[in-house]
Amino acid sequence: MSGGWLCVAGLGPGDAALVTPQVQQALQEATDVLGYGPYLARVPRRADQAYHASDNREELERARHGLRLAQAGRRAVIVSSGDPGVFAMAAAVFEVMESEPAWQQLDVRVLPGVTAMLAAAARLGAPLGHDFCAINLSDNLKPWSVIERRLVLAVQADLVLALYNPRSRGRPEGFARALAVLRQHCEPQRWVGLARAVFTPQESIRHLPLAHVQPDMADMRTLVIVGNRATRTVGRYIYTPRRGG
Amino acid sequence: MSGGWLCVAGLGPGDAALVTPQVQQALQEATDVLGYGPYLARVPRRADQAYHASDNREELERARHGLRLAQAGRRAVIVSSGDPGVFAMAAAVFEVMESEPAWQQLDVRVLPGVTAMLAAAARLGAPLGHDFCAINLSDNLKPWSVIERRLVLAVQADLVLALYNPRSRGRPEGFARALAVLRQHCEPQRWVGLARAVFTPQESIRHLPLAHVQPDMADMRTLVIVGNRATRTVGRYIYTPRRGG
Repeated sequence: MSGGWLCVAGLGPGDAALVTPQVQQALQEATDVLGYGPYLARVPRRADQAYHASDNREELERARHGLRLAQAGRRAVIVSSGDPGVFAMAAAVFEVMESEPAWQQLDVRVLPGVTAMLAAAARLGAPLGHDFCAINLSDNLKPWSVIERRLVLAVQADLVLALYNPRSRGRPEGFARALAVLRQHCEPQRWVGLARAVFTPQESIRHLPLAHVQPDMADMRTLVIVGNRATRTVGRYIYTPRRGG
Repeated sequence: MSGGWLCVAGLGPGDAALVTPQVQQALQEATDVLGYGPYLARVPRRADQAYHASDNREELERARHGLRLAQAGRRAVIVSSGDPGVFAMAAAVFEVMESEPAWQQLDVRVLPGVTAMLAAAARLGAPLGHDFCAINLSDNLKPWSVIERRLVLAVQADLVLALYNPRSRGRPEGFARALAVLRQHCEPQRWVGLARAVFTPQESIRHLPLAHVQPDMADMRTLVIVGNRATRTVGRYIYTPRRGG
């Protein structure tokens, strides 16, 4: 029963060369690995480990499963894409931990990873070189009015915006609505970077002025970065100067 | 003359276990490694590599040096702490590239890393589980009035705040001023996380209500995370629920 633990680990954007040695080590020591199917598929299989795939809507149940395994003395790793602390599994683990005081005594660790906006920024140039924000455009967990208000305030603050989950099959209109808000508050030549499937064989990267961005340019694998007033191009890159304006 | 390149690489927060294999590979192939002295000191020395240490105020000159080396056919890596795209060397490289069209044709790549706020969040729990922003409190490169305005708008947007460079010897009053602004706009029980020297032997981590935070609790190695209205504690952790409020 003793010696169990739960790690919530970030696999980075997709390439195995972006998985930290810390996460590799935890996977090496694990008895059980849990995750959304496509993320779990990135973990090399071993005969002596158990793999527990679940749907991406089952985050709380996956978190409970991981905590129950740790409580039973197993060494469990829940894998997330990117960083587990950014719009991913770490918050779900702490949420379910509230309901069960015994779980709060367990050995639970969050192992950071390269989150999508850092990978996207690296491939675009350096758009996050000045103050920025990260906003999840999914309205599964918050009303659209909150998202819209945050977009407006962030533009007023002249923050660069990293937009996660711009569009999915269940929310085809999310990115179009965000673009409409941005067009009301930003000049048409504002630079927008679109980074899809970064550091995978399907990678595509481009940047263009806000006026030319179309809603169908983003899908569920795209990370969108909207520059601030100072974001500019140099060669094939976009970047935000350190002075920021 | 051919085959030269420049990589701008993130070493992560401090522990070698958080350096990605991609960055390790670039360092392996490099002929020259450049960086601020304490970051360069984290790179294992090899007899067949040249090391170029410089002061942390010499970012533009370091960037030019790296580009000149690549132009001369060398394989150069400029190392940053954390992620090179977040308040670090990548933007400096693109800035100096503007002045020299030949540099825009070089093979220049940004290699992402685990930035300080992700490492800090992992050790605190999951405070970045909902929308958040990253603000550099240094007023070396922007006026304090801009920082203050951003803090206020970010609180109005109910974003979690990751505050980089809260305080240094040259700016002892920065964090005190930020706290004064936050106290005007947040309730006294708002959770604040202070993460110093994360993933190093000097690591210290704590969280406390805004009302109890003192200016001398942060120094130049501290990353401060100010929760949003929903940020809460569970066990020894703080986290922001995915619904965010």
